[in-house]
Amino acid sequence: MKNHHLYAVILAGGSGTRFWPLSRKLIPKQFLRIIGDRSLFEETVSRIRPRVAAKNIFIVTNRLYQSKVAQEIKKFGVPKSNILSEPEGKNTAPAIGWAAARIWAKDKNAVMLVLPSDHLIQNKGAFLRDTDRAVSLARKNYLVTIGIAPTRPETGYGYLKTVKTKAGGRVIWRVVKFVEKPSLPKAKKFIKEKHYLWNGGIFAWKAGVILSEFKKRLPVIYRAFQKKTDAKYAARIWPSLPAISVDYGILEKAKGIVTVPAKKVDWSDVGSWDALVGILTKGKNKNTLKGNVLDIGSKDICVIGDKRLIVTVGLENTIVVDTPDALLLCRRNLSQKIRDAVALLKKNRRGRNLL
Amino acid sequence: MKNHHLYAVILAGGSGTRFWPLSRKLIPKQFLRIIGDRSLFEETVSRIRPRVAAKNIFIVTNRLYQSKVAQEIKKFGVPKSNILSEPEGKNTAPAIGWAAARIWAKDKNAVMLVLPSDHLIQNKGAFLRDTDRAVSLARKNYLVTIGIAPTRPETGYGYLKTVKTKAGGRVIWRVVKFVEKPSLPKAKKFIKEKHYLWNGGIFAWKAGVILSEFKKRLPVIYRAFQKKTDAKYAARIWPSLPAISVDYGILEKAKGIVTVPAKKVDWSDVGSWDALVGILTKGKNKNTLKGNVLDIGSKDICVIGDKRLIVTVGLENTIVVDTPDALLLCRRNLSQKIRDAVALLKKNRRGRNLL
Repeated sequence: MKNHHLYAVILAGGSGTRFWPLSRKLIPKQFLRIIGDRSLFEETVSRIRPRVAAKNIFIVTNRLYQSKVAQEIKKFGVPKSNILSEPEGKNTAPAIGWAAARIWAKDKNAVMLVLPSDHLIQNKGAFLRDTDRAVSLARKNYLVTIGIAPTRPETGYGYLKTVKTKAGGRVIWRVVKFVEKPSLPKAKKFIKEKHYLWNGGIFAWKAGVILSEFKKRLPVIYRAFQKKTDAKYAARIWPSLPAISVDYGILEKAKGIVTVPAKKVDWSDVGSWDALVGILTKGKNKNTLKGNVLDIGSKDICVIGDKRLIVTVGLENTIVVDTPDALLLCRRNLSQKIRDAVALLKKNRRGRNLL
Repeated sequence: MKNHHLYAVILAGGSGTRFWPLSRKLIPKQFLRIIGDRSLFEETVSRIRPRVAAKNIFIVTNRLYQSKVAQEIKKFGVPKSNILSEPEGKNTAPAIGWAAARIWAKDKNAVMLVLPSDHLIQNKGAFLRDTDRAVSLARKNYLVTIGIAPTRPETGYGYLKTVKTKAGGRVIWRVVKFVEKPSLPKAKKFIKEKHYLWNGGIFAWKAGVILSEFKKRLPVIYRAFQKKTDAKYAARIWPSLPAISVDYGILEKAKGIVTVPAKKVDWSDVGSWDALVGILTKGKNKNTLKGNVLDIGSKDICVIGDKRLIVTVGLENTIVVDTPDALLLCRRNLSQKIRDAVALLKKNRRGRNLL
């Protein structure tokens, strides 16, 4: 059931080396094929395709990834002209402002769904039901953020404080407060209190509604795209735009924010090797072995290799990631420390070439 | 102080993949450069060089390794014609019989020192003192095997039961029994009783004396080399020779075997990755890191890499051996299990190519 006024804006400009050595500057997380045969980016397009016409799917990405995106959207029939290439990452507000202006120029009744491209959502049916509700609220001029029911007191996420209320005879959840990266005691309290949700960065709103918010709260971005929205023009004015998130720049200040509590989508931001290993399918002895791996008696290990032979003997709780020019060996639950290694690599020339 | 009638016979034909993936069929242990800059083979030649003239150093090896040996002996001035190439490994008796016949043909007064090329001897001074004593006993027509003072109840070695006695006013240790690979309780008993030594496979005897033993106990080998000892001839008669060790074929049956107890040579047969790791120099946190390794907080690990970047995060008690086409990851104290992996690799075509 497609809605002709419904648009998807997929944010695919994120960089990062959290999945080093598999992810590199030129192959960030959203383009990796680790879970199943498709990248998280492809999964994102595929997931929303039942609701949004191919010509209504827009992708904002860094120009480093433009050709990669072009290649991946071909199979979905999304036109290449729907790629908005940023000269450099400026967080989500400029990206969303540009896309909103572009879509609004085409369709004054447009409702846009904003979707991160590097999250994993395993229950696609639940996801579509939640986005349907978000879109229906967006049509009533609400700014909607989908709230993920938290499963642990995560301190790295943003939380939405919600209040259940009624509007027009219908139950809605108003967002009364945004809390970014709480302390552990606070996060634990949020989990107990139950009316806190994670802010998963999935939004729905009318292009016109979000643009009027931009006009009020981030007028530099609003004015930048008031007349022109083509790529050449955007590249020229891009340096003048502030680097700011839509959460901080607009949502935390705006009124009329509501949420759709997503309880069954089975969401993960796949934020680290440890998170990924937790998601991957386990085989014998709780091992995940990808590539040309021969194991003798290991337990709870995850090996991601390719053609090169890897023999593992009696390992436990270890993550192994093998690439042609770099090998990572990391004890499970310590993958946060990989960033220390990456920081050290940045400092020396040979290491830098491997990022 | 060189002895013109002293010869060295270095046994360098051993094959094996205990150090897989560093050792392969074509690069067995004795040719690996893991400890220091020189291979165990080079160390063996270098160690005996102060006593034996270059032209008196003979090497028995498999013909697979002939060119490797030729290359390595060049720097010591050992002539290429001193390489005796076996068409196939037949244990130590044919190798020693051939070398003895070749040397005896040259020098009827020759004393030969037989030296394995794949053991580590860290105290070179003590080694020379022990071999000097062995050579002096060999001149008195004894068959001498150097006995290594055991440091643990090893069940994989051969033991010499010795009796301290006197001959010609001089203390000598007679070998009264050979015990091959004892049970653990037996090995423990041997350690306590103190007059047991490991049989390290380092021998000294007159060429003429060992040849008369061959005549008595392994006449097929004796007769084979009675007239001719050239390589072309040896290659032709080699298939007719029995595969047998000099220990089993001669020493266990012969009389007049004595030993020189070596207490300070600091000997190791470097029989496994674990043994090797025990020997290698440790750095910070008891880690041994060779190659292009970046470590974040690991303990008791040994990484043997080369140019490829290896990042280790929080590992413990792990052995990592990285080669261009195969990677080994093994928990310490489990390196005996690598042979299970190697056996599995032998079964499949791709694996076989990596042995």
